[in-house]
Amino acid sequence: MPNTRPRIYMQEVATRDGFQNESQFIETEDKVRVIDALSLCGFAKIEVTSFTSPKAIPALRDAERVMHEITRQPGVEYTVLVPNVRGAERALSCGIDEANLVMSMSETHNRSNLRMTREQSFAQLEQVVSAISGSSVAINISLSTSFGCPMEGDVSEDEVLRWIERFANLGVTRATLCDTTGMAYPSQVRSLSARAKALFPEMVFTLHFHNTRSMAQANALAAISAGIDRFDASLGGIGGCPYAPGASGNACTEDMVHMLELEGFDTNIDLERLLKVSAMLPGLIGHDVPSQLLKAGGRNTLHPAPAYVAEIGLKP
Amino acid sequence: MPNTRPRIYMQEVATRDGFQNESQFIETEDKVRVIDALSLCGFAKIEVTSFTSPKAIPALRDAERVMHEITRQPGVEYTVLVPNVRGAERALSCGIDEANLVMSMSETHNRSNLRMTREQSFAQLEQVVSAISGSSVAINISLSTSFGCPMEGDVSEDEVLRWIERFANLGVTRATLCDTTGMAYPSQVRSLSARAKALFPEMVFTLHFHNTRSMAQANALAAISAGIDRFDASLGGIGGCPYAPGASGNACTEDMVHMLELEGFDTNIDLERLLKVSAMLPGLIGHDVPSQLLKAGGRNTLHPAPAYVAEIGLKP
Repeated sequence: MPNTRPRIYMQEVATRDGFQNESQFIETEDKVRVIDALSLCGFAKIEVTSFTSPKAIPALRDAERVMHEITRQPGVEYTVLVPNVRGAERALSCGIDEANLVMSMSETHNRSNLRMTREQSFAQLEQVVSAISGSSVAINISLSTSFGCPMEGDVSEDEVLRWIERFANLGVTRATLCDTTGMAYPSQVRSLSARAKALFPEMVFTLHFHNTRSMAQANALAAISAGIDRFDASLGGIGGCPYAPGASGNACTEDMVHMLELEGFDTNIDLERLLKVSAMLPGLIGHDVPSQLLKAGGRNTLHPAPAYVAEIGLKP
Repeated sequence: MPNTRPRIYMQEVATRDGFQNESQFIETEDKVRVIDALSLCGFAKIEVTSFTSPKAIPALRDAERVMHEITRQPGVEYTVLVPNVRGAERALSCGIDEANLVMSMSETHNRSNLRMTREQSFAQLEQVVSAISGSSVAINISLSTSFGCPMEGDVSEDEVLRWIERFANLGVTRATLCDTTGMAYPSQVRSLSARAKALFPEMVFTLHFHNTRSMAQANALAAISAGIDRFDASLGGIGGCPYAPGASGNACTEDMVHMLELEGFDTNIDLERLLKVSAMLPGLIGHDVPSQLLKAGGRNTLHPAPAYVAEIGLKP
């Protein structure tokens, strides 16, 4: 029987977006072990690490070693975050499949997070695009705070669409709309996704949600209803938000896969295998993770009935 | 300007479904304080307590005192859980607005949880309906495990619809489809809700979700798309599931209200006031609560930008 379920492409970000937020350094061999296990789960893409300055993000100071030591699987793209030309050179030397560039849709958030104006970021990323163009490496632009900024508030759709156009004009063919601090809500997601898809039909869009306000799953379904078929998510839901201490972080991969499969989509993910990888996380990072599936198991997890159940009703 | 936003009716269950699961007894005056504060938040209904045997659920052994000491607000219905005729007599003596009856759609879950066969439960509830009929007290039937049983697995829609019909035939006009252990998923919710609404157009339906597998919010939107306009939810998301230790419990009221208001619905809830009540919970129950809103605030919560932001870009 042919598989007629619509395909959803899952992209794992835990080892970059998750690990970079951990105060405790994850040993290189543990990172490699997690990534190698994830590589066997059916992801379309894995964001392995970040080629930022080791001083800025010491948690990922072993980027080269990680890239060299992982065992790549055919069919999986290995992407890394690249902030500047220096990072691009380091990343290219490791044979990446994709460079993930990032800037914020909010001027204040860009200044706060990247310590540059948006124009300065764009100029820098333009250089990165030039440095990579001509190689076989794909380029993705991640647009932070596309659904709102924790300092400025709302971000207009037109503003996001303008920046997509500027990157499209550089020849960038992949873009991620990031809900960096969990401000996106379903009707907003549907609206921006639909406009972006209609205006840039050649662009491959990813949606990147945070579950900070418990809307990541509803947002994913809203995005799908607008034609999106590609999501970032983080194993265990790790990777928090500095503006909401204690709140959930990134959309949780296993929770999203579980829901999407129940909804009739083909995520290509081996959920049982994925849950075993997720179960490694609390030990590695030294704390509990937001994942619900890890605690409850899938809905097909059956429990034994108490012994007395069989006796009930026999002697009324 | 007239309010043209579709109305969603919110029903708070924390002081019954939440408190009954707490190992630590909540003092009567604290319960009353929480209920009185909830009464000012705009709920359509509050499930105050349960008239089960004090031996079976000692956490709610003060049901009469709570009912007598709360300050009722006009426009809010005060409902209580009533398991049997003895409970109905106790509840009626307290001047309740509604009696909430409960049985399970799964034979095994009913035996396990209520220690009766479903037929025995129905016979007992038939007596309760008789005892209450003729009074001005409304009757609601809560159908546990309507979306799946943790011991049996799937529960068929036809089975749920058959039990609704049996209660409708007793004159019961209100029914709650309960996702007791967080097994419901959006397309399933849409399907059962639509069939139930179509078959029993006179029945007032409530949907009761648990966020055990991170789908409560998506399920609420799915239910609304099938014409449902009434939800149970629990302040702070308290009220766990014995089959998933550590996982989220009931759908969280403030998380649901926040999303539904953003989606353009009128929940009639004062979210700011509600969050203040939710903030009382960790102190009362002695542990953190699953609520995301309590940690992150609403999406309109703005944070100050760091001081250096203003300087950036001045000296390029």
